Amino acid sequence: MSAAHQPPRFISFEGIDGSGKSTQARLLAEHLRAQGREVVLTREPGGSPGAEDIRRLVLGGAPDRWSPETEILLFTAARRDHWERTIRPALDRGATVITDRFADSTRVYQGTTRGDLTEMVDRLHALMIGVQPDLTFVLDLPPAQGLDRAVAREAGAAQDESRFEGFGLSFQERLRAGFHDLARQAPERVRLIDGTGSLDTVAARVQAVLETEQA
Amino acid sequence: MSAAHQPPRFISFEGIDGSGKSTQARLLAEHLRAQGREVVLTREPGGSPGAEDIRRLVLGGAPDRWSPETEILLFTAARRDHWERTIRPALDRGATVITDRFADSTRVYQGTTRGDLTEMVDRLHALMIGVQPDLTFVLDLPPAQGLDRAVAREAGAAQDESRFEGFGLSFQERLRAGFHDLARQAPERVRLIDGTGSLDTVAARVQAVLETEQA
Repeated sequence: MSAAHQPPRFISFEGIDGSGKSTQARLLAEHLRAQGREVVLTREPGGSPGAEDIRRLVLGGAPDRWSPETEILLFTAARRDHWERTIRPALDRGATVITDRFADSTRVYQGTTRGDLTEMVDRLHALMIGVQPDLTFVLDLPPAQGLDRAVAREAGAAQDESRFEGFGLSFQERLRAGFHDLARQAPERVRLIDGTGSLDTVAARVQAVLETEQA
Repeated sequence: MSAAHQPPRFISFEGIDGSGKSTQARLLAEHLRAQGREVVLTREPGGSPGAEDIRRLVLGGAPDRWSPETEILLFTAARRDHWERTIRPALDRGATVITDRFADSTRVYQGTTRGDLTEMVDRLHALMIGVQPDLTFVLDLPPAQGLDRAVAREAGAAQDESRFEGFGLSFQERLRAGFHDLARQAPERVRLIDGTGSLDTVAARVQAVLETEQA
């Protein structure tokens, strides 16, 4: 196996609300652990004790508590902590890291709500984080299906973490278009996965793409 | 009065620990209010409800809770909120703003502890804040005098806000040198003020410099 074909070890899942990111991240972690690999399963915002504290600060409170610019800074602070304390140490010891969201989420969400801030987001990422996953799975499905799942989940979730959901179908449509753009802009690492169908069907699609990448 | 001689309305106080920043900021606010000016007296880190929440997050906990890079991001998030919610609205309605610390503190403190991060601090400020005070007073005095004041104050202060003090005399010496460098690098807005002597003596020096700037 040449260096160019090292198996991807830093893997992210992205997609609209209710696309199944968290579930598929967990299923892939179980699949790889069954193969004997050490897998660290994590998520954003959060993923380290400090980042979880920042997450609570960002997601709590009224929708206008933070401006988009302050919010971007807080998410980037959380991501820096997540990278330093959880992701980088795991990669350094040879583990595989699977994260439910990474920098692409900030880029696509902010690009959808405030397109004029996309360049700021990119420059801030380049300055303060500077790394991207080896492989990113975007779970793609019609927003109506995602929204049904998200609403069902929200019914049992903490009220203060729902700020980004419930914007309705047209917002999710625009988010989906943003993730499609991302897949076109970063074809070297972003794979669009059909997110419709049963959990096992989608998991099999993810595993098949990963096999190809590792071949 | 030409536009070039508008009185400075965004004023910051900087200096080593115990240099008298907070007291002199307050005395200048009282002086200007006595002249009939509306003055907003504020401080960093903090200065707005959101920024105060971030302040608690940064200053609490163990010294190694945050890396220098994460800390810089959190301070910048707090500063952005402080700027948007407190400083800019006050300036927009014609008030004068006096702040106990602003971006120079981050630059000089980080430059003293981690000089390799100075460029990162500058680029982050340019990208996410982009403004400087019209006038900055650096209260300058021998660190031994500042440390005596800081220690006397700390005895009654909350334990979790003392992270940046107590580094000892040699650290304060290097900080002082950093503030001297700042005064050399930004002579158009930074004024070094002799911080020794009584409160009234120092306050008179500050007022005299401000009169000159407004002439």
